[in-house]
Amino acid sequence: MEKKLRIKALDIKEGRYEITLNEEDARELGLHTRDRVRVYHNGEYRVASVNLSSRAIGKGEAGVTIDLQEAFNLKEGNFITVVPTAKPKSVEFIRKKMDGLVLNEGEIDAIIKDVVNRDLSDIEITAFITALYINGLNMEEAASLSKKMAENGEMLELRRRPVFDKHSIGGVPGNKITLLIVPIVAAAGLVIPKTSSRAITSAAGTADIMEVLAPVSFSAREIEEIVDRTNGIIAWGGGLNLAPADDIFIQVEYPLAIDPHYLALCSVMAKKYAVGADFVVIDIPMGSEAKVKTMEEAKRFAREFIELGEKIGINVECAITYGDKPIGRAIGPALEAREALATLEKGAGPSSFVEKSLELAGILLEAGGVASRGRGKEAAKQILRSGKALKKMKEIIAAQGGDEKIKAEDIHVGEYREVITSDGEGYVIHISNRALVRIAREAGSPKDKGAGILLHVTKGEKVKKGDVLMEIYADSEYRLEQAVKLAKQLKPITLEGMVLARVPGITYFEH
Amino acid sequence: MEKKLRIKALDIKEGRYEITLNEEDARELGLHTRDRVRVYHNGEYRVASVNLSSRAIGKGEAGVTIDLQEAFNLKEGNFITVVPTAKPKSVEFIRKKMDGLVLNEGEIDAIIKDVVNRDLSDIEITAFITALYINGLNMEEAASLSKKMAENGEMLELRRRPVFDKHSIGGVPGNKITLLIVPIVAAAGLVIPKTSSRAITSAAGTADIMEVLAPVSFSAREIEEIVDRTNGIIAWGGGLNLAPADDIFIQVEYPLAIDPHYLALCSVMAKKYAVGADFVVIDIPMGSEAKVKTMEEAKRFAREFIELGEKIGINVECAITYGDKPIGRAIGPALEAREALATLEKGAGPSSFVEKSLELAGILLEAGGVASRGRGKEAAKQILRSGKALKKMKEIIAAQGGDEKIKAEDIHVGEYREVITSDGEGYVIHISNRALVRIAREAGSPKDKGAGILLHVTKGEKVKKGDVLMEIYADSEYRLEQAVKLAKQLKPITLEGMVLARVPGITYFEH
Repeated sequence: MEKKLRIKALDIKEGRYEITLNEEDARELGLHTRDRVRVYHNGEYRVASVNLSSRAIGKGEAGVTIDLQEAFNLKEGNFITVVPTAKPKSVEFIRKKMDGLVLNEGEIDAIIKDVVNRDLSDIEITAFITALYINGLNMEEAASLSKKMAENGEMLELRRRPVFDKHSIGGVPGNKITLLIVPIVAAAGLVIPKTSSRAITSAAGTADIMEVLAPVSFSAREIEEIVDRTNGIIAWGGGLNLAPADDIFIQVEYPLAIDPHYLALCSVMAKKYAVGADFVVIDIPMGSEAKVKTMEEAKRFAREFIELGEKIGINVECAITYGDKPIGRAIGPALEAREALATLEKGAGPSSFVEKSLELAGILLEAGGVASRGRGKEAAKQILRSGKALKKMKEIIAAQGGDEKIKAEDIHVGEYREVITSDGEGYVIHISNRALVRIAREAGSPKDKGAGILLHVTKGEKVKKGDVLMEIYADSEYRLEQAVKLAKQLKPITLEGMVLARVPGITYFEH
Repeated sequence: MEKKLRIKALDIKEGRYEITLNEEDARELGLHTRDRVRVYHNGEYRVASVNLSSRAIGKGEAGVTIDLQEAFNLKEGNFITVVPTAKPKSVEFIRKKMDGLVLNEGEIDAIIKDVVNRDLSDIEITAFITALYINGLNMEEAASLSKKMAENGEMLELRRRPVFDKHSIGGVPGNKITLLIVPIVAAAGLVIPKTSSRAITSAAGTADIMEVLAPVSFSAREIEEIVDRTNGIIAWGGGLNLAPADDIFIQVEYPLAIDPHYLALCSVMAKKYAVGADFVVIDIPMGSEAKVKTMEEAKRFAREFIELGEKIGINVECAITYGDKPIGRAIGPALEAREALATLEKGAGPSSFVEKSLELAGILLEAGGVASRGRGKEAAKQILRSGKALKKMKEIIAAQGGDEKIKAEDIHVGEYREVITSDGEGYVIHISNRALVRIAREAGSPKDKGAGILLHVTKGEKVKKGDVLMEIYADSEYRLEQAVKLAKQLKPITLEGMVLARVPGITYFEH
């Protein structure tokens, strides 16, 4: 049973697929509110939830919101076909995972297909994610999930192999190392098609930073073409359709504030599988305010990445890195782009930034056979010092459509700035990553590209009263004021012996 | 931050609360699609999900669907206040249950309050139900959940105590025993405010059957008043607001086709707690096609009901009953109402129906002290035989607004009927409850009150070729034809040695 209905375009955006039917049409199709239908147009379909109307939508019409209009490029007066649809079979497999059983590859494929096709409702997807969160996955299931998340989406097909890649688990501000690693590795002749994300909760994602230097949105075919010419790219992954199930899962994880461990593993590896990576180095920052808190946890994570990689044919090497302070001195898109470009220009920069980048690039150079075992970091350093990395970065910037003549000093950073000085004396014993991110975001990062923080001190440094601790940059005066206010309240830099707040009768110390 | 907005009434029904804001208003409130807002009107609020519109909804307006219009009795041009709202604290407690931890009474109360107030989204409620399904509940948590489900809803306040009640787990067709138990118990002077459900997947719920004799929709105050006069009532529970969280949970359980064990226990006990029951007898039908399949499972269920009852101050006695064939001979609202009334009139009826009803009524009579220990069933039999039960039933019918002069023979049953005869000979060795329910529903039950099945044979009976096995009743010829077709296909009654189907080369036997 089905009905061909005429589109009534509703100027409403809902963030999900819904369709409003006239009550009479719905009755004839046996449909009630919240029932599930397939909406067909030109042979494609989306699954939508049913709303009813007695007058606003006439018989023979279908009210369609912007979400579905965009999915099909529908206009008022176009026709769609509505077909009632039963619960998909994958709901049974979700039940199986809820019952603590193991899923096979076919069952996982069915779930992911239905997730991507929007055949599953929020309720069913949430049940799956919750079951994964509670019951976990074994390595076979994780391998199937990674592969199927990739295969039910776009896959890069690069002409040259092997393909190298890099991933950081995240949670550390200023972590702009991709902007050194990609040009170094590409300059050494290795293929590295890096896709990065924009900031969700951080001050700047790698895609936000790279966008200061060049466009970052490309199709899969464009990426293949750029990488074919330059060996490297720093693109925004969200502009592609790599492992699209992941974005849908995030819509469930976010309101529940959960990050199911196995899904996090699979999400990373699915994206690496989708770009066709043969060798991946994974940066696992460890620290009290990073995602991974202890060495034990970091090692477990590393072992799991390596094992999962083996199962899906990707060589993985993990680097557990120091995550208890920012990387480099700049936080925020333009400030970080400037710091990275200046480092490429000078062949040197803040040691926390340069050392980490060279270590990780070195691992890739060794894996690619362009440096001998144990000599990768030194080879990376040579490429940086020699100016080859800068030259390669300019090639990449040009290939992505940016201005290859750009210099670090040309980069526009926030024109409103305020200096925060120390009101005490002592050694810097703690820098709160979390507080710095909040301040940078308050200043406008990542949306205002020029907003952010430039640190003037690092952990262990001796500070005198009146010394500059940091500068806050913003694109507007209002934002700057708000950020300065927050900085004075949060006090992200702690000196030894500093009293953080004093309330009559009680004294609090940050520990 | 909040905004007072003028209602634009949308003629759309969505089955959930959504509100459409103008993009500019939304931006000023910092809202995106699917964000959560509180919508206030006259001091009350509902939580709604945000949709956006650039033109259909003007600045200063709020598009409101029928769902929210009905919740607040809103009209075009009324004003509401929209306030962005953070994730409620109860999401943390849901996380706790996902992490396998134990919830205290305050945490459970917070979750149920937010469920009932619609402060939690489908995603969050699904995560809770899935976590309950996987991680279960301990008895303390189950007790808190039962109480809080009741307390966050309507509670009956009956003038007289103690209050008696009865519940059947369900899964057996023809189980109309409430229509004998309530008048017997009420005739003995005990208070029994029975609330029943309508059929969801069965052929007739007790509320559907009682509705043939009298109205069943009453407010809590009306129920209190009727019970005060007559001792008993058979009302539709869905017309009240008893343990309303349960109905919301069902909206999640249904699409996942799950019935979390502990939630099933709590759902029953919450409703008993809400009517103020002091003593409850629970009927646990056991059989291969019933909800409970084995004696072990039935005993576990019984022990859990008793323990849970103890914890919330309700005395529970369980009766494990035979559930492998229908109770009595009639299936379907009018046919069952007729069978029950005829049994009250004659003081006797089909033994499966009468014996079970007297057993359960007897347990209540003993508990109420109107029969001595071990003499309850006999006392119940006397009340039935003496005509006191019939007299009481007529009082109750009248109090509920029905015709007290109604006689069994007056009850209108489906005017289209067909006799199904045996095409073989042998003893009846199996009657498929599930097949009978499907046939009765195909004939139109429970919506067509006259539709259903009248069985002419019972298990163990000797049947000759051409003997009547059953009659199918329907309110329309079309429905009758469909049901007869299904009956011939499903063959719900199995004779010893009967070949069920023969396919060249292979013979299938039902076991």
